[in-house]
Amino acid sequence: MREWEKNIRRVVPYTPGEQPKNKNVIKLNTNENPYPPSPKVLACRERIDDLNLYPDPAISDLVNALATYHGVDPSNVFVGVGSDDVLAMCFLTFFNGDLPIVFPDITYSFYDVWAELYRIQYRTIALDDDFKMLPEDYQVPNGGVVFPNPNAPTGVLMGLDDVRKIIEANRDVIVIVDEAYIDFGGESALPLIDEYDNLIVVRTFSKSRSLAGLRIGYCMANEELIKALNDVKYSFNSYTLSRPAILMGKASVEDDTYFKETCKKVIATREYFENELKRLGFTFPESKTNFVFVSHNKVSAKVIFDKAKENGIILRYFEKPRIDNYLRITIGTDEEMKKLVDFLESIL
Amino acid sequence: MREWEKNIRRVVPYTPGEQPKNKNVIKLNTNENPYPPSPKVLACRERIDDLNLYPDPAISDLVNALATYHGVDPSNVFVGVGSDDVLAMCFLTFFNGDLPIVFPDITYSFYDVWAELYRIQYRTIALDDDFKMLPEDYQVPNGGVVFPNPNAPTGVLMGLDDVRKIIEANRDVIVIVDEAYIDFGGESALPLIDEYDNLIVVRTFSKSRSLAGLRIGYCMANEELIKALNDVKYSFNSYTLSRPAILMGKASVEDDTYFKETCKKVIATREYFENELKRLGFTFPESKTNFVFVSHNKVSAKVIFDKAKENGIILRYFEKPRIDNYLRITIGTDEEMKKLVDFLESIL
Repeated sequence: MREWEKNIRRVVPYTPGEQPKNKNVIKLNTNENPYPPSPKVLACRERIDDLNLYPDPAISDLVNALATYHGVDPSNVFVGVGSDDVLAMCFLTFFNGDLPIVFPDITYSFYDVWAELYRIQYRTIALDDDFKMLPEDYQVPNGGVVFPNPNAPTGVLMGLDDVRKIIEANRDVIVIVDEAYIDFGGESALPLIDEYDNLIVVRTFSKSRSLAGLRIGYCMANEELIKALNDVKYSFNSYTLSRPAILMGKASVEDDTYFKETCKKVIATREYFENELKRLGFTFPESKTNFVFVSHNKVSAKVIFDKAKENGIILRYFEKPRIDNYLRITIGTDEEMKKLVDFLESIL
Repeated sequence: MREWEKNIRRVVPYTPGEQPKNKNVIKLNTNENPYPPSPKVLACRERIDDLNLYPDPAISDLVNALATYHGVDPSNVFVGVGSDDVLAMCFLTFFNGDLPIVFPDITYSFYDVWAELYRIQYRTIALDDDFKMLPEDYQVPNGGVVFPNPNAPTGVLMGLDDVRKIIEANRDVIVIVDEAYIDFGGESALPLIDEYDNLIVVRTFSKSRSLAGLRIGYCMANEELIKALNDVKYSFNSYTLSRPAILMGKASVEDDTYFKETCKKVIATREYFENELKRLGFTFPESKTNFVFVSHNKVSAKVIFDKAKENGIILRYFEKPRIDNYLRITIGTDEEMKKLVDFLESIL
């Protein structure tokens, strides 16, 4: 072994969901929105300009638009390159204590990877048999708390009262609520940031805003936490969001009518699909996201996953304890879900 | 102090160069290219599409275009969100030894910040009185070497023979040559990556490619180092570069004629400006970049900086040891540099 090889940071690489180039495939594996972003987003493509100049390092146009939209102050908003970037910055900035941070055993698969990357100790807390987080389980000494609400890949929403219980029990550490899927029927913890100075609420443009291709995420919290994040961000890479992303992201925030209509369409399709799943004998926790986490007692998840793939339908399968007989299925268009239902019917 | 405040990572925030919104200002403070990118870059704005879908996590279109352009294999190329992102990933991935990493005392101001952010020990090595790096100074035990070539903010180029000497003396650690400004007249270390498996050559689209607004950087090295970087990147944020950046970045790489013409224009303006500077009594090391690092023995750098600002010309001033009587002046258009020369003449 060469000497320098010893000092390479080894990580368990995360495997992103497949991004097939074949457009005929029905892609229900990465929780993308099946609808394009607001026409106003596309309309501003021709205004992309001044590319020889750095973007505004403070990303003010987008920060201000988000602050207005959410009724908070711009000093309460931090924007990054997708919510993964925002979350990783939060881990790096706030999880520097001696105690392990805690998160659910079944959850977003990046949390343990970031913890390992930054050498942060962590401990997972088991969901109950219905995939529910129990607030009382989070009343343990820890160095920080992070969880998605609704949770992924389960789709299960925790009520705001329970979220509040977790924050109340953890006032000495930072609590991060990752609300990537909140727009599909959940109640946000955002109003609590005034009350709890240790709460961070994270959002993304990749799901409900149909802008996975732009890479925009953000979080909201009290001014002091946002300042700490900006200090780390400026020390890391001052100019993160590109000019096109800032311009088009702002246009998205400003078209609330389109945004709400799109969310409604996804929710309606989810309800149709859940009814069909029941009819076909699938079980699944109630979803408040743009995906459903399903299992069938006659055919294994892996078999369905493989056969679907052969038929040009890509689903998500996690070969992990407790969930290796489940599939995470993104809500596509009505047409896509009908094709999937036909396929499922044919193999059961 | 609240309990959670104790665990916030404290960094010395980097102050990015001002990005004034006033378009009448002559902006010579952040080494942007005064010319727009290739018309082919702007022409593909209307092809920005599929924004609801994640970008290709492997960034293959751009990686392949860069590999073809540089005559290397795609497995030798890693792309990130600006060269700052690439460099920070390199620090995190490769600088994990017990010995301090080394870099020049006068150099790019992010190196010490990343080292502090990731708690990497470092030691600086003084440039000589002519702002030159002496290869023999780098024959010391260390945990890694990083330097820009040409150096910033001095603009001084080191010959390839000397670069080779530094790599030869440091075969047990990773050596990063940050070639942000190499296209303005330097000889690249790129051909050496075949010979030295511990060498990483970093580039950016922000200077010579007139694309600071898109946030694209990359590095080239042997396959094993690129794989280690990709492992860390995938564990951090799988989808970094946005769809617009991948599309427009590729268009830039494919228009070499425009690229070379733009570099030539910047070099010609630099030569004109250097002659004028000499005439006005400025001293400066020979620049092989798109900026000049100047000093005058009659008027202090700080005074020139302040007066220029009052006159709508923004230069860069670093209040740091050894260089606090120097100004870094970006090469703008001929017209901008003529206005600056007129201004300088008026105050001397």
